[in-house]
Amino acid sequence: MNQVSMVGRIVREIELRDIGEGKIVLNNVLAVQKNYRTDHGVEADFIPFVVWEKRAELIEEYCNKGDLVGLMGKMQSRTYKNNESETVYVVELLVNEVQFLQPKK
Amino acid sequence: MNQVSMVGRIVREIELRDIGEGKIVLNNVLAVQKNYRTDHGVEADFIPFVVWEKRAELIEEYCNKGDLVGLMGKMQSRTYKNNESETVYVVELLVNEVQFLQPKK
Amino acid sequence: MNQVSMVGRIVREIELRDIGEGKIVLNNVLAVQKNYRTDHGVEADFIPFVVWEKRAELIEEYCNKGDLVGLMGKMQSRTYKNNESETVYVVELLVNEVQFLQPKK
Amino acid sequence: MNQVSMVGRIVREIELRDIGEGKIVLNNVLAVQKNYRTDHGVEADFIPFVVWEKRAELIEEYCNKGDLVGLMGKMQSRTYKNNESETVYVVELLVNEVQFLQPKK
Repeated sequence: MNQVSMVGRIVREIELRDIGEGKIVLNNVLAVQKNYRTDHGVEADFIPFVVWEKRAELIEEYCNKGDLVGLMGKMQSRTYKNNESETVYVVELLVNEVQFLQPKK
Repeated sequence: MNQVSMVGRIVREIELRDIGEGKIVLNNVLAVQKNYRTDHGVEADFIPFVVWEKRAELIEEYCNKGDLVGLMGKMQSRTYKNNESETVYVVELLVNEVQFLQPKK
Repeated sequence: MNQVSMVGRIVREIELRDIGEGKIVLNNVLAVQKNYRTDHGVEADFIPFVVWEKRAELIEEYCNKGDLVGLMGKMQSRTYKNNESETVYVVELLVNEVQFLQPKK
Repeated sequence: MNQVSMVGRIVREIELRDIGEGKIVLNNVLAVQKNYRTDHGVEADFIPFVVWEKRAELIEEYCNKGDLVGLMGKMQSRTYKNNESETVYVVELLVNEVQFLQPKK
């Protein structure tokens, strides 16, 4: 069992990448407000997310950086080698459903 | 909105840390089975989690490494400086409810 | 384990009830869009929800009928006797967190 | 957005119904422990659930009444006419993923 729901704002410009054989992927970050205030006001958590294929294209069509969206899916972990050949460990939300909470761009 | 439910196995030995002023914290990792098979059999995602205070003490009392538990909470992000003074970025589950799915140890 | 996240619109006028000893309760219904279209267009599920105390007062202060909100909590079941002395079985969302998705009224 | 995770025990005998054209459906109830004690001990909520097709057949193959399972899905509402031609309103969990938490029967 692995189930995640989040509502937050898209942090970076939306960019689709074609990773070959027509496979489309979108990597970005969601800023999710904490449900309490600190001395610094309302703070946020920054959760990386990844979306594949048709769903990625829909986000690219409907959303801009800064837009409020609902994302549902599962947390996944993976590792990759960065440019310095170090192994980087990533924990991110693999999105399987999106709800647009603002008018279309 | 930020809500997470997971069922998985505790990966590391359970260790409480007292970080001063009697504040107790437990850091560990949950191995959550993917809901599909790959050529390598059933795989898992490895999601770091953190539990505070009373709830941490309950886990220490009831669970061993390898035990199956249900964890509920929120994903949070934070950064810290490691021993090489590099900034490390962490995404982890902040647990606010636990369900024990095995007999008490 | 019992965890629910929903985004939808408040169906009925918002009304607080004082059930004695100063205990405040709010009962209403959330219209949650289905994530697919039918021949009748986009349809919704209608999920009863209940909120207690401070959180109920916040909803009364911030929301109107028709407003979009995010609700988190647990599904609960209960029975009561109606005016004809029949036992009625209710399944409803017991809300423990609210996110307002529109400007304050 | 409509997302539900529950862990609980299957309340009734498991029965598949063929509703025509080979469509298989399973209706049952999940007993989900509350996360607090009352004067009567640990109580439970009783949440109706519905599962379709392959997933229903898997539950029939793997589970018995009383077994512990994890269910994920969405809450849905619907109405039907009962034998006295009264309209009955149902709120239930539409299951889209199951996790078996006990050895196979």
